[in-house]
Amino acid sequence: MKNLLLASTSTLHGSNFLEYLLPELKLHFKNCKTILFIPYARPDGISHEEYTQKTALTFAKIAIDVKGIHEFENPALAIKEAEGIFTGGGNTFLLVYQLYHNKIMTVLKETLEKGTPYLGTSAGSNIGGLSMQTTNDMPIIYPPSFQTLGLIPFNLNVHFLEKEAQSTHMGESRETRINEFHQFNNFPVLGLKEGSWLEIKNGKINLKGGLTAKLFRKNHSPIEITSETELSFIQ
Amino acid sequence: MKNLLLASTSTLHGSNFLEYLLPELKLHFKNCKTILFIPYARPDGISHEEYTQKTALTFAKIAIDVKGIHEFENPALAIKEAEGIFTGGGNTFLLVYQLYHNKIMTVLKETLEKGTPYLGTSAGSNIGGLSMQTTNDMPIIYPPSFQTLGLIPFNLNVHFLEKEAQSTHMGESRETRINEFHQFNNFPVLGLKEGSWLEIKNGKINLKGGLTAKLFRKNHSPIEITSETELSFIQ
Repeated sequence: MKNLLLASTSTLHGSNFLEYLLPELKLHFKNCKTILFIPYARPDGISHEEYTQKTALTFAKIAIDVKGIHEFENPALAIKEAEGIFTGGGNTFLLVYQLYHNKIMTVLKETLEKGTPYLGTSAGSNIGGLSMQTTNDMPIIYPPSFQTLGLIPFNLNVHFLEKEAQSTHMGESRETRINEFHQFNNFPVLGLKEGSWLEIKNGKINLKGGLTAKLFRKNHSPIEITSETELSFIQ
Repeated sequence: MKNLLLASTSTLHGSNFLEYLLPELKLHFKNCKTILFIPYARPDGISHEEYTQKTALTFAKIAIDVKGIHEFENPALAIKEAEGIFTGGGNTFLLVYQLYHNKIMTVLKETLEKGTPYLGTSAGSNIGGLSMQTTNDMPIIYPPSFQTLGLIPFNLNVHFLEKEAQSTHMGESRETRINEFHQFNNFPVLGLKEGSWLEIKNGKINLKGGLTAKLFRKNHSPIEITSETELSFIQ
């Protein structure tokens, strides 16, 4: 049975890395002495080592050790044997490129379907959807496919935000982009605001974090979903 | 000799489609009775027909007819024989997918290098760069390559905007994204604000439109460039 937290962001404005999630993570990873960290998305281009060290400093606060997947000779085996797994944010194109390049997309999917506790933030949550096609990131590298883990039967748009009414910028709004996605793809997209996360546990998907989320379906008007709603109706 | 206008946006806030560019376009396309329109980027998912019609209504104001490339049986021949060409904005992934799918990326490049006057706006300007990798668009469709026309020796980031100082949103700023791009790619990126365009004429590249642009180069601090600057120094 899947046991996942997929968060819109790692960091809230004015707060430290993962700070708002720590009480949740203490419970989520309660049976883990060590978790495996996947630093491939490299926010700001920082190295795997730096990113893993930053993550280790945070998890030390809840007495959990962190090992970066780049420290293992056999990354597939590291995934299979991990007590818990965390994929951090950064660039989704780079993350997906690296998961395919290191041939671990499938083993990661299989491992998470068997119940290894998982945390994703931002890009690490995007890959939980059916495809990475609703990422906000720049295509800085060409991945062999846009298909991702499909741990939930829809896509996520993380760091979701509404267009500000007073904006004079003519670039597409998030909603316009998602509508364009639905010209070519049928599956739903959930816009997840910063501070929201999905809890996938006991066969259920719940919206957590106190904020609303916005659900976009092809040929339907978007709907606003309140926190604590069970989302298994999204197909 | 190339004869191109690459504009950040088709539309300024509070103004009509291409309105701010019309005096420029009258000169640029002065020898054209008809121009060929490439509507592949389909903003908001509108059809090729609708997009072409919208464009035709605008060009009628300067007495130029518009034919959509989708109206031709042989799009490569339509490009070669066009008096002038305009590629409109929308989704860059879709535009690039279609240019490859219809096998016209190379003929478009060759034709524009020979001097057919060209206008690109937004996605239609992105493709003038070396690659589409600094687009802001969502990857709604998987193109066979990110490589584009390379009519200028750098990339564009259109609809460029600075992060607002008071923003509390934690999604990456445009500058952060471009810095991530430079972890994996060496060529410069020019951030082109809405209302700016590049004029490529007589072997020179000039920044037009009265606004500054921001130049990002790998391992250098970004620099602000004033309007009317000649940009051939960017390599």
